[in-house]
Amino acid sequence: MSKPANSVLHTPLSRENATSLYEQIATRLLEEMEAGLYEPTGRLPSESGIGERFGVSRVTVRLALDKLVSEGAVVRKQGKGSYVAGRQVRHGLDTLRSFHESLKLQGLKATMRLLEKKVVTLPDDVRQRFAPAAKGLFVQRLHLVDGEPVALGDSYLPHKLHTFSWNEVERQPAYSLLADRMGEAPARADIAILAQRADQRLADTLKISEGDALLVMRRTSYFTSGACADHTHFYVRPERYEFVMSSTFRAS
Amino acid sequence: MSKPANSVLHTPLSRENATSLYEQIATRLLEEMEAGLYEPTGRLPSESGIGERFGVSRVTVRLALDKLVSEGAVVRKQGKGSYVAGRQVRHGLDTLRSFHESLKLQGLKATMRLLEKKVVTLPDDVRQRFAPAAKGLFVQRLHLVDGEPVALGDSYLPHKLHTFSWNEVERQPAYSLLADRMGEAPARADIAILAQRADQRLADTLKISEGDALLVMRRTSYFTSGACADHTHFYVRPERYEFVMSSTFRAS
Repeated sequence: MSKPANSVLHTPLSRENATSLYEQIATRLLEEMEAGLYEPTGRLPSESGIGERFGVSRVTVRLALDKLVSEGAVVRKQGKGSYVAGRQVRHGLDTLRSFHESLKLQGLKATMRLLEKKVVTLPDDVRQRFAPAAKGLFVQRLHLVDGEPVALGDSYLPHKLHTFSWNEVERQPAYSLLADRMGEAPARADIAILAQRADQRLADTLKISEGDALLVMRRTSYFTSGACADHTHFYVRPERYEFVMSSTFRAS
Repeated sequence: MSKPANSVLHTPLSRENATSLYEQIATRLLEEMEAGLYEPTGRLPSESGIGERFGVSRVTVRLALDKLVSEGAVVRKQGKGSYVAGRQVRHGLDTLRSFHESLKLQGLKATMRLLEKKVVTLPDDVRQRFAPAAKGLFVQRLHLVDGEPVALGDSYLPHKLHTFSWNEVERQPAYSLLADRMGEAPARADIAILAQRADQRLADTLKISEGDALLVMRRTSYFTSGACADHTHFYVRPERYEFVMSSTFRAS
């Protein structure tokens, strides 16, 4: 029997085995999922990708995936492909928290990588928020889970924070930096959630393709005085990320 | 002078005019924006599309758009193109409202078109929410602004609502139908906001391209008793749509 083209397997499938091919493939994928091979996004390769890798037809791949779905190990998402079940990141919005804190609260191994930190003249739309200040600290941080990028945060912060070291900004959540330097944490935030397609810069940074869907959170935080504490865009890889909240009726 | 290829202009640009080409183009685009030509998405054609239409270089198109941006008539959105300014739909989540009501609250001319209405055996993941009921009403409605689709809502509702007529379901917001038939409106909802790429069905229905980014709201509403009132996915065209809310710190 010839080895399938493009095989990346350590052990080839057995075509003489009593176990059917699709069951062997299901077992192999399950082992890889358990070994964390598809973390943190949880996305499995496409059906055609799996078929090519194992040298089998798409029908066989579907049978394997159907088996994993029926066992609850894999979920299919409309228009998005197949995913390792049960690792959805649910970022709660009912309580104000730093993005980094929200990831850690999920029990995820969350880290940050500081990409940029510089004093800037605030762009017009940001300047009005921080008025009368004309300058601020711009910080760009990559949020990672298990070492893989899940979101990019572009933040404008009060100028006073510019004396923090590179290491401090890389490690401390924004609200912790603000509390340390300003003497109080933000009291509230206006939040907007939107979607856009990734441009080349975002695609490269987040390791996705240009044009992929991104979930975006725009957050402007305020101190109790009403002074602006931060203005941040978070560009989030959406595969298994969702923002959640409870909403109640109230007199308006 | 020859007419530019692919021109759809009623009046061609004047290349002998004292007014520069880019200013003429800016004026033309502004007139069209004011006439509502780019509503409801507000998206202007691409730079290359505008260039081709007017038979001018991309540099000239950029000058025209820069002029409109500096005048506040157009906004550029990273990775999304140029948009008519100031018609962002801001869907507030702080208070629970029907999707349709939220659009009307923005002062938009919002309508619904009923695409499907049928009694169904509830899918497994929905059935547990409506337990012990095994059947429910499935309703698919297109939400339009100025006659153009902005969102598709796929709703599961209590079986008791199946006696409403096609017309009633097409016209009444979900929470109004629920209040009429169940004797009370939902008291709270769990909401998740996510992003995904449009598959062929969603792309066709929403008049976008397969693979385009979609903003998705998944909502499960409950009556005060805790019984499930609706389970709905809203697939939203994201160009100018954002979900907004305020978040405050609280002891957790």
